[in-house]
Amino acid sequence: MKLSELSERSGVPPATIKYYLRERLLPPGRRVSATQAEYDESHLRRLVRALIQIGQVPVSAARAVLAAAEDDSLDQHERLGAAVWALPYPAEPEEEDTAAEAARREVDLLLERQGWHFGLKMGAHSPVYRTLVSAVASMNRLGYPADHEQLTPYANAAAQLAVHDLDLIEMYGTPLERVEAAVVLTMLGERVLLSLRRLAEAEESNHRFGKPVD
Amino acid sequence: MKLSELSERSGVPPATIKYYLRERLLPPGRRVSATQAEYDESHLRRLVRALIQIGQVPVSAARAVLAAAEDDSLDQHERLGAAVWALPYPAEPEEEDTAAEAARREVDLLLERQGWHFGLKMGAHSPVYRTLVSAVASMNRLGYPADHEQLTPYANAAAQLAVHDLDLIEMYGTPLERVEAAVVLTMLGERVLLSLRRLAEAEESNHRFGKPVD
Repeated sequence: MKLSELSERSGVPPATIKYYLRERLLPPGRRVSATQAEYDESHLRRLVRALIQIGQVPVSAARAVLAAAEDDSLDQHERLGAAVWALPYPAEPEEEDTAAEAARREVDLLLERQGWHFGLKMGAHSPVYRTLVSAVASMNRLGYPADHEQLTPYANAAAQLAVHDLDLIEMYGTPLERVEAAVVLTMLGERVLLSLRRLAEAEESNHRFGKPVD
Repeated sequence: MKLSELSERSGVPPATIKYYLRERLLPPGRRVSATQAEYDESHLRRLVRALIQIGQVPVSAARAVLAAAEDDSLDQHERLGAAVWALPYPAEPEEEDTAAEAARREVDLLLERQGWHFGLKMGAHSPVYRTLVSAVASMNRLGYPADHEQLTPYANAAAQLAVHDLDLIEMYGTPLERVEAAVVLTMLGERVLLSLRRLAEAEESNHRFGKPVD
């Protein structure tokens, strides 16, 4: 099959396939002449296709996800963790001031109360932990202090969804399939969750302050 | 007070203040000479300061948020809605295919079961609704179909958090304060929620597949 055919059958634009080939995220096709190579569907691995279709995954992140997915020296938790860890994430500017200190204290208290010992152990090594601290610090600075009690409903919601997501991930048998499911559920699940939260807020606001819906 | 002093006391960089002045999101200072103007803290309205400190709010969105906050012709729900509506949001590429049709059907079924009549009424007029449909459609295309039952835990979590957030917003007395609280809670709350979700997933994965934490 030529690259153009592979593109047509997979729904991935030729330029994207070429880019991924150049970046060695996809194995090269079998060269049949000086200007042409043969590809088959297996060239477009499922995980790579998922990363392309999710969108907004930079090549460096895609490469790290693939490396984690295929690293036999990692156990299952480490593979999932390393793959999800590599996914793009809104970075938060970090500042060191009293608001940041207070935020770190409340976040640690929250993790402790939730029994999240893994998160406590990783702490500042984890970019996600640091983003959480920075977001809470920004709230402090703006005069909306969020202590661990205020954060608890958010943590509870996250914990419930995590059980739900891991149940789905466990339905898949191989480590590679599980990594793929984790990547898709993490990235697209975030968009689903944020959309539903905004819709729910509009609903609740309408319920409290609005006119009745006809 | 000179612009440099205002910057120091508010923690907002001079370049940002100048940019917002140029874009007329802030009222001009009182001119004291050909090259110098006097500013006071009231020039940097709380809401504008919040928008700057939250970061990643483009000027066009900030302008729309301010316009909504100050529009006396809107009732409270409409002001909150218009302000939050204007906040930046990860756009999802939209495609029309059978995956998108199936996604729309399941999303509508979900909103109906949740009793979200406002969301159903707004439907495709709402960018958030369209993002939700697109994210679910992407899941379908990748072979992770999400029907309304699979989406229900996400919607339930969102509904619980919306009650919590609106309780906080209602603690503020004036419409302007409420809009500001809604803006801050929506934007920073999203970062808090996504961080906690990733931490909770790591926790749950470690719990199921990992080694015990020392």
